[in-house]
Amino acid sequence: MRKLTILLLATTLMTGAAQADALRDAALEAFRPLPSTIPAVKDNPVTPDKIALGKSLFFDPRLSASGVFSCYSCHNLATGGDDNMETSVGHGWQKGPRNAPTALNAVLNEAQFWDGRADDLKAQAKGPVQAGVEMANTPENVVVTLKSMPAYAEAFATAFPGEADPVTFDNMARAIEAFEATLITPAPFDAWLNGDDNALSTEARAGLQLFMDKGCSSCHSGVNIGGHGYYPFGLVEKPGADVLPVGDKGRFAVTETADDEYVFRAAPLRNIALTAPYFHSGKVWDLDVAVEIMAESQLGEALKPEETARLVAFLDSLTGTLPQITVPVLPPETGATPRPTQDIR
Amino acid sequence: MRKLTILLLATTLMTGAAQADALRDAALEAFRPLPSTIPAVKDNPVTPDKIALGKSLFFDPRLSASGVFSCYSCHNLATGGDDNMETSVGHGWQKGPRNAPTALNAVLNEAQFWDGRADDLKAQAKGPVQAGVEMANTPENVVVTLKSMPAYAEAFATAFPGEADPVTFDNMARAIEAFEATLITPAPFDAWLNGDDNALSTEARAGLQLFMDKGCSSCHSGVNIGGHGYYPFGLVEKPGADVLPVGDKGRFAVTETADDEYVFRAAPLRNIALTAPYFHSGKVWDLDVAVEIMAESQLGEALKPEETARLVAFLDSLTGTLPQITVPVLPPETGATPRPTQDIR
Repeated sequence: MRKLTILLLATTLMTGAAQADALRDAALEAFRPLPSTIPAVKDNPVTPDKIALGKSLFFDPRLSASGVFSCYSCHNLATGGDDNMETSVGHGWQKGPRNAPTALNAVLNEAQFWDGRADDLKAQAKGPVQAGVEMANTPENVVVTLKSMPAYAEAFATAFPGEADPVTFDNMARAIEAFEATLITPAPFDAWLNGDDNALSTEARAGLQLFMDKGCSSCHSGVNIGGHGYYPFGLVEKPGADVLPVGDKGRFAVTETADDEYVFRAAPLRNIALTAPYFHSGKVWDLDVAVEIMAESQLGEALKPEETARLVAFLDSLTGTLPQITVPVLPPETGATPRPTQDIR
Repeated sequence: MRKLTILLLATTLMTGAAQADALRDAALEAFRPLPSTIPAVKDNPVTPDKIALGKSLFFDPRLSASGVFSCYSCHNLATGGDDNMETSVGHGWQKGPRNAPTALNAVLNEAQFWDGRADDLKAQAKGPVQAGVEMANTPENVVVTLKSMPAYAEAFATAFPGEADPVTFDNMARAIEAFEATLITPAPFDAWLNGDDNALSTEARAGLQLFMDKGCSSCHSGVNIGGHGYYPFGLVEKPGADVLPVGDKGRFAVTETADDEYVFRAAPLRNIALTAPYFHSGKVWDLDVAVEIMAESQLGEALKPEETARLVAFLDSLTGTLPQITVPVLPPETGATPRPTQDIR
């Protein structure tokens, strides 16, 4: 009885700050704030020269066969690092198979693409450049293009010192990865994790509590609140074929293991409020609806409207601040630069 | 005899500086350096709020029906303010009829488009947004799109204070014009006109002298070294149909006057070294060749190789420095934002 009284008293006296501390302690078990410095990447030292070159390459439409598309086209840094389309439009007005993920904070994902088929961004960056429905270029043509412009040749030599032949397709990808490593967007949630009680609204904190209590954080955890681990879309109940088209079996295409049918990497949720439409199919435009579909398909839960609102308030707190990015000045073509072609090969 | 001796002596003693002054005096009769402040535009006070809004609009692909193209797509500020293609690729992978002119310093042109059919940039900006082969949007859909995003509604209200209904298609164009007024690129030629003898190489100065002596500056003059006045392409001798396609009669389509067949606005030559390919047809990639075609077709002159080289050295001195432009952060779509459509109407 005395014990219970003390417990009740303690609970009653528990201050808002103490409650916040308890929630923060629990949150720090599941999540990590963004680092304050540019993350290191594997086998690719991130240097200022490499970042500068990577920024130029990221913005350069001459990496595409047509001259129409750069990395920036589908990973638009002005609109949350993606293109706000179901699936991207590429070479010949063809549509890609899956929704373009954001480039923001992508360096912190465990693997890249919806099915994790690329280990890191330097592997990822080589994909869209070559994909027939995206930039439709070839490594050979990219290298000829870059070598044709003396300022690029110099920038590669500076960014990759000591290499006999620095202008390579792989070094292009390494430089792009180095630039993307700078695309880190600290958000109110980071400020709160770092100890600023005022960074999250009451509703966002309630949403965070719910996000952990319901089990969302079992998959969407870590520094990117997702971006690692593979899970079946429809763990409890498969969503409709409009959202989960039968033809796209996700990670199955990578591992060819029956268990991996309709398995996808848990989506990283930073800046999710900026990156509609949602899911690999890009079929859902409303974040509320996306949250409800997740709750039903992964947790078997029908959310109450106020629960959805709280969860979305928490997700809104993941919208971060982009570093200031100045538009690079790209080298002009020369007589040796391959001409753009809009032909479909 | 005494007079002649004095004259010869004076000529002999004429210093490099005096020669430079004489060339500069002659040049200042034909050309003007860029202003050091943002140019005022007619009927559209350029304010910081309007510039900021205009920058967002310039970068926003949601001004196009497809969500693929922004002003920036074809007037790429990283590549000289144009798109380095014969003619631009737009909605449905369609090709536009003429080469995209640079947006840099365009505010200082007397009229816009190759045929001068728009009086100014606020008139010009409304064209590509609606052109079926470019952004394929409608004014109504643009306004619904902008009004659907509260941050845009606020930005328009701030940029156009006191207006009852500030989010209009015309105000979109006014804001874009205000941003474009900031795209001024001071070049070595400006530094030289302003008195810096070292800003131009000996070859560039010889090229300038030739540019005036041959008569190039009769049409390509003023602050933009062109961008005003209308002249037949092929004044002396029509270039081949590959360069001057018979189907495009230029200003004739604007004035319906026989005299205006194959008449075009004299191209502004600032940053010309960055904006290949050349002419309204975009058929010539090499600046040397473009200069030779001009000399033949407009002046009836076959240039010697060293003359071409000098003229190109002068043209190179028109490559300017872009102001630092940071990528804007655009407002996210809401449930009320019209969805992008790639359909061809």
